[in-house]
Amino acid sequence: MYKTALARCTRRTAPTLQAAAAARRGYAAAAATPPPFDWQDPLNAKNLLTEEELAISETAEKYCQEQLLPRVLQAYRDENYHREILSEMGELGLLGATIEGYGCAGVSTVAGGLITKAVERVDSGYRSGMSVQSSLVMGGIYDFGSVEQKEKFLPGMAKGQILGAFGLTEPNHGSDPGSLETTARPHPTKEGYYLLSGAKTWITNSPISDVLLVWAKLAATGKIRGFLVEREKCPPGTLNTPPIKNKNGLRASITGMIQMDDVPVAKEMMFPEVEGLRGPFTCLNSARFGIATGTIGALEDCIARTRTYALERKQFKGNPIAKYQLVQKKLADATTDAAYGMLAAIQVGRLKDEGKASPEMISMVKRQNCDRALQNARILQEVFGGNAVSDEYGIGRHVSNLFVTQTYEGQSDIHSLILGRAITGLQAFV
Amino acid sequence: MYKTALARCTRRTAPTLQAAAAARRGYAAAAATPPPFDWQDPLNAKNLLTEEELAISETAEKYCQEQLLPRVLQAYRDENYHREILSEMGELGLLGATIEGYGCAGVSTVAGGLITKAVERVDSGYRSGMSVQSSLVMGGIYDFGSVEQKEKFLPGMAKGQILGAFGLTEPNHGSDPGSLETTARPHPTKEGYYLLSGAKTWITNSPISDVLLVWAKLAATGKIRGFLVEREKCPPGTLNTPPIKNKNGLRASITGMIQMDDVPVAKEMMFPEVEGLRGPFTCLNSARFGIATGTIGALEDCIARTRTYALERKQFKGNPIAKYQLVQKKLADATTDAAYGMLAAIQVGRLKDEGKASPEMISMVKRQNCDRALQNARILQEVFGGNAVSDEYGIGRHVSNLFVTQTYEGQSDIHSLILGRAITGLQAFV
Amino acid sequence: MYKTALARCTRRTAPTLQAAAAARRGYAAAAATPPPFDWQDPLNAKNLLTEEELAISETAEKYCQEQLLPRVLQAYRDENYHREILSEMGELGLLGATIEGYGCAGVSTVAGGLITKAVERVDSGYRSGMSVQSSLVMGGIYDFGSVEQKEKFLPGMAKGQILGAFGLTEPNHGSDPGSLETTARPHPTKEGYYLLSGAKTWITNSPISDVLLVWAKLAATGKIRGFLVEREKCPPGTLNTPPIKNKNGLRASITGMIQMDDVPVAKEMMFPEVEGLRGPFTCLNSARFGIATGTIGALEDCIARTRTYALERKQFKGNPIAKYQLVQKKLADATTDAAYGMLAAIQVGRLKDEGKASPEMISMVKRQNCDRALQNARILQEVFGGNAVSDEYGIGRHVSNLFVTQTYEGQSDIHSLILGRAITGLQAFV
Amino acid sequence: MYKTALARCTRRTAPTLQAAAAARRGYAAAAATPPPFDWQDPLNAKNLLTEEELAISETAEKYCQEQLLPRVLQAYRDENYHREILSEMGELGLLGATIEGYGCAGVSTVAGGLITKAVERVDSGYRSGMSVQSSLVMGGIYDFGSVEQKEKFLPGMAKGQILGAFGLTEPNHGSDPGSLETTARPHPTKEGYYLLSGAKTWITNSPISDVLLVWAKLAATGKIRGFLVEREKCPPGTLNTPPIKNKNGLRASITGMIQMDDVPVAKEMMFPEVEGLRGPFTCLNSARFGIATGTIGALEDCIARTRTYALERKQFKGNPIAKYQLVQKKLADATTDAAYGMLAAIQVGRLKDEGKASPEMISMVKRQNCDRALQNARILQEVFGGNAVSDEYGIGRHVSNLFVTQTYEGQSDIHSLILGRAITGLQAFV
Repeated sequence: MYKTALARCTRRTAPTLQAAAAARRGYAAAAATPPPFDWQDPLNAKNLLTEEELAISETAEKYCQEQLLPRVLQAYRDENYHREILSEMGELGLLGATIEGYGCAGVSTVAGGLITKAVERVDSGYRSGMSVQSSLVMGGIYDFGSVEQKEKFLPGMAKGQILGAFGLTEPNHGSDPGSLETTARPHPTKEGYYLLSGAKTWITNSPISDVLLVWAKLAATGKIRGFLVEREKCPPGTLNTPPIKNKNGLRASITGMIQMDDVPVAKEMMFPEVEGLRGPFTCLNSARFGIATGTIGALEDCIARTRTYALERKQFKGNPIAKYQLVQKKLADATTDAAYGMLAAIQVGRLKDEGKASPEMISMVKRQNCDRALQNARILQEVFGGNAVSDEYGIGRHVSNLFVTQTYEGQSDIHSLILGRAITGLQAFV
Repeated sequence: MYKTALARCTRRTAPTLQAAAAARRGYAAAAATPPPFDWQDPLNAKNLLTEEELAISETAEKYCQEQLLPRVLQAYRDENYHREILSEMGELGLLGATIEGYGCAGVSTVAGGLITKAVERVDSGYRSGMSVQSSLVMGGIYDFGSVEQKEKFLPGMAKGQILGAFGLTEPNHGSDPGSLETTARPHPTKEGYYLLSGAKTWITNSPISDVLLVWAKLAATGKIRGFLVEREKCPPGTLNTPPIKNKNGLRASITGMIQMDDVPVAKEMMFPEVEGLRGPFTCLNSARFGIATGTIGALEDCIARTRTYALERKQFKGNPIAKYQLVQKKLADATTDAAYGMLAAIQVGRLKDEGKASPEMISMVKRQNCDRALQNARILQEVFGGNAVSDEYGIGRHVSNLFVTQTYEGQSDIHSLILGRAITGLQAFV
Repeated sequence: MYKTALARCTRRTAPTLQAAAAARRGYAAAAATPPPFDWQDPLNAKNLLTEEELAISETAEKYCQEQLLPRVLQAYRDENYHREILSEMGELGLLGATIEGYGCAGVSTVAGGLITKAVERVDSGYRSGMSVQSSLVMGGIYDFGSVEQKEKFLPGMAKGQILGAFGLTEPNHGSDPGSLETTARPHPTKEGYYLLSGAKTWITNSPISDVLLVWAKLAATGKIRGFLVEREKCPPGTLNTPPIKNKNGLRASITGMIQMDDVPVAKEMMFPEVEGLRGPFTCLNSARFGIATGTIGALEDCIARTRTYALERKQFKGNPIAKYQLVQKKLADATTDAAYGMLAAIQVGRLKDEGKASPEMISMVKRQNCDRALQNARILQEVFGGNAVSDEYGIGRHVSNLFVTQTYEGQSDIHSLILGRAITGLQAFV
Repeated sequence: MYKTALARCTRRTAPTLQAAAAARRGYAAAAATPPPFDWQDPLNAKNLLTEEELAISETAEKYCQEQLLPRVLQAYRDENYHREILSEMGELGLLGATIEGYGCAGVSTVAGGLITKAVERVDSGYRSGMSVQSSLVMGGIYDFGSVEQKEKFLPGMAKGQILGAFGLTEPNHGSDPGSLETTARPHPTKEGYYLLSGAKTWITNSPISDVLLVWAKLAATGKIRGFLVEREKCPPGTLNTPPIKNKNGLRASITGMIQMDDVPVAKEMMFPEVEGLRGPFTCLNSARFGIATGTIGALEDCIARTRTYALERKQFKGNPIAKYQLVQKKLADATTDAAYGMLAAIQVGRLKDEGKASPEMISMVKRQNCDRALQNARILQEVFGGNAVSDEYGIGRHVSNLFVTQTYEGQSDIHSLILGRAITGLQAFV
């Protein structure tokens, strides 16, 4: 019984396998020269990318290394976000790149991930600023907005002319957004308007944003709905977006609060249909995928920096410290996690485009890639010894940033429990 | 400059992306029902397999669960390998399955990996017995043997009628096989014959093997060469293959030594061309890929057993312990590592068939998958509390087995240094 | 204000400090020869022991190394406990050693810990057999028994002539003993007797025990009480203590169930006063302290075995593998944890004798010392490479045993939650 | 034979044990109320301290909490060290406190450790500034200086009027100070003077120091000697001590370089006898002990801050997150490591005063306490979720600081190899 099945399989797979077998034979026979190993892409993830994706990646990497990298050290020191970066990205077509139409590039989810990776190779803060614009706000409008909303905002956002912010988290509700307290009640006098009141915190880009996607509960139903709040339309004193300063990570991005005191919003600025947590969670899903891919970029930069340092730094009889077992193990561990993380991200990206990516898959790669990037970055930082304390080596910045990526858009433990619930069928949040 | 590149990319990728975008839209719009999450295949690795590979996997799983699983508990207790298992596998076409011709199935490397995974889901010892036959000996003959050697051995080995053993490791040379001491010197009186002398240890299947692939140094050149030693042709007293008993892992496989005292071997039984470590390392490469895939099977079985136990075991007010956060985190961690490991194994398998898999890639997936399988199995074992000490829950057996997989065919630290060398260009072995 | 305080302190501490300062000066001045470092006692824990304690430790170590060590390999293979070991220990005065009177040695808690450490250096199973006798049963009788009970049992138990077992854990109640189901109801016809019914499992020594300390709920009150069940007084068919075989750890100890079907027990055999979980928990506290100290012995043996192996095993140009950084780090880590664990155990032992040791302290050292002993033993096992699979190196046995110590008498996670409750004031069990 | 020994022991230990046994009995009998557990001192380390030491600790804690804590947040933000802190400490008698005479307090090594712990509970940078003054410079002068040197510097340093810096590390020689390149050659014209040339880096306090203890090689012999360089005596342009800015840790301390270009130093300012690495290593030993104790203070502060946050922060149905298992485990782990680390530090402190502390013991507690403090601080930081990015919670500052403590005065891996060498007798540095 078994045998028939396998025999049938064999016959069918035969053609493609002859090529494979030939390849193997060729290697074994000739094989003075085994295939090369590239420490920057150890498991040859490139082999899974289309030519177009490779080209997009190259373009993004070039921009980031040439234009972003020179700015980041000082920006991080000064806790100063250069708003023009979003314009530059817009000009290049990097914003909302997976969206089709509305002036967006319409690239694959994997290509979108490669863009975030290129940006986060420089700095997680820069990537955060872009993620909010692209995944959380543009993505939200694209998925849930009315035709008018899309046409009004997406083209300008794609160019980086209109900046967005995403208001979900509240001071008392982080891991449990379902309990949010911001409300939207009908305007007592102005027909077709709501009044939004409440406070949001840890909102990337809020102080410089033009349009704020705010999630609030309708007073009547208690259901969560999304509102597009335009700053320029808010009467003085109703909307306040003070920056949060003295952060110990993501200092090259700008973060703030959203304080709303009876902000009037026209009904047309509410997402027409989506209700409950499905709206914000769909946006988060896209952003989380971006984080999962992006943090691999940061980790890869840590690996490259550590490798260079270890080859140049000599101790004990003039040996480069890269020659020491304890250093090599750190590099081997980090490289492995980067390679594995990249494969997982590509897989989930492909599934996303096929409509097969479940939120739990996103939880898995977001959690694991952030955790491993952080953990390895910390271990690699040890290689720098006392010199690690200087910000010029860059790795300390990555370490501080990566800790934040581990906590936002679903803290690591929360994603564990999301996965645990999916595995066991039992929830353990309370 | 950048912009042009991205614009060009975009155009080219457009067609396939419309489907993707549609898929995404579809999900977001309808999306009361997100795509499903399967804890047994969390990142949908199945999506990467051909129909044929899925069928092969199913066939192998069916055989293993129905025929092997019922035997393993007692076999492990008694430290007793059932030799007939190899015959059964041969009958099913599971032996040397990636080899083309000679009665072998000629399936893809990934399909071969799925077979090892099915076997190791039951027991790493059973997989070891098969790996030696398939990857180390059949693979070695296929890659390096003369036409006559292939025709003489492969068909019978594929059927499981002729059993092979692989003699590389020596009592004093484990991680450093280049220093092996077994020698082949010209027979003083019999033209065209060598005399082999030396000792090999930790040789899976050696006590029951019919043909032993022995690596020895030619006395004249000091170069390592491969010899096919046929047991039935050895004069009494020249070849001895005593079993090694009282192992604390892999007890369902049989392990022994190879003691050679002037074993005469005809020159025709030497591999014609391959010289040095390239021969054994090529064989090991295939076997290591099998281990990398196989151990994921063992880990998946640990996850399934733990999940079942945790759902059934109730403590503290009748709650299943699967509801506790500390248990869910263990399951989430293990599931993640299993999913990641599987994707990496598939990737390396595909690259192998394309002739693009470097030995370091194999080192990476062998090391990581063994390490993570072992680590997670141990953590999951904690969920069983005191009951873990009973062998009937099976997880203790996996833990003991997986430790051995971490140490053989390249101990984990050795693979770290192989990777470290590839990353830094510096060797740190001595 | 501050200054006065410090000045006052200074004056008072002056006398002893002059000696200290002199010692420091002496070292700094002469100091070609710094004080020695002993890898077997890295933080000089011996300095904290009395002469008597050192002598007791030496005596116990001598017995264990000379009399127990030669037996353990075969006993573990055969899953065979030598009952006479308890007699030998009794003859030496090692049983119930911290008890005063009744033929017991009356040594300090720390001295008692040193005895368990000596035994567990050989095997955790041997230590388990002794712990049950000494801490759980003799300790229970001493703390809670009536004068008659003490006089009846303690002298014979101290000599190892009467063997005890401790029946708390039930098949469905491990981590949550408060839910135990065994009941004691008044004998319907025989005045002054109870009938005990229920089942206990994972009971060390139960198959060979003469007296079983069984915890059961009084049918009338539902309160937990302790009963001393004498095997010879049980009518045929009422008491059954089948062994549990095929364990994957502690195989040199004997474990079984206790099945009671209307076992008649005289009221005089009930502990007179203690009620609820305080009884069994007090016994467990003593046993857990023994485990905390004992497992350090097992870890120290792993360190010594690994060090010897690493110095003798040569790989790569004839270097002993002890010279490699990755091996040295493993030894440094393990040695540190052993040294820290020993200091913590001594501290808690001293506090116990002063009546200052809280149950949470015991939880802390039980958990940490078991966890770290296990973790380090596993890491050290890697140094043995493939050879680790042979039981003759002994370290695999320790690894298997130590896993069990981590799960029994409070699984590691349970102790985490006990500590968490003490730290936060909130319980997280359910 | 054994028996006699144990019996003898027993008799001798009997008297003290009766008290112990009575204490145990008392507890078991009464024991409705077990001894208390204090999460701030879980293993009752206080029980090991003298009244005087407790008083010193209290004084130091009071000063640190009242005077230092309010300053640290802004100082860290501004990377600004308040030089007057050392004066305040001097006034209180906290500087060079273990030194006897010269206006120093002459307290025990443990008391000295408690002072560093109190300071580091606030900030590792403040502790670093104090350690350099007390252990590295004052300690060095006290141990190796001439009578004149002691009298000239110690009293003013004790008061915090004269500030010291310790110049050992060089840009190219961190872990291997034996290769240092700074030289002292005889002044070509000025009799009895040396000229010092070379560069030192990562020197705490260097920019504000009055006297710099510089280690240099005598040109004639190549032997390392210590020189006390007085800033005010240096001709313009010969000594330069530029600060190093933009550090990512220890920002509340001041760090700089020492650049010497033919600095003339009188022969009387050279340490009279000590030669080679013994000098600097003795100083480092004292400082490392201070770090080992101090980092426990930082960890304890992390625990306290996390506990408070977790009790106040509510998520999911209004539960404080302190109630969640994953949070409790983090607290239990950290508390355990803090308790163990404190016991180890006290033990080594006592041994130091008895002249029994080997350098390897110091390596062990320095390495372990820094590693564990850092690791646990990072894990605890996760409890703060997104809020951790705000510097007002303080834990991010500890995390950044503790990373530096892990790398300075012997990076963690270097101490592993020091221990490895002591354990195996083989050195693995090269």
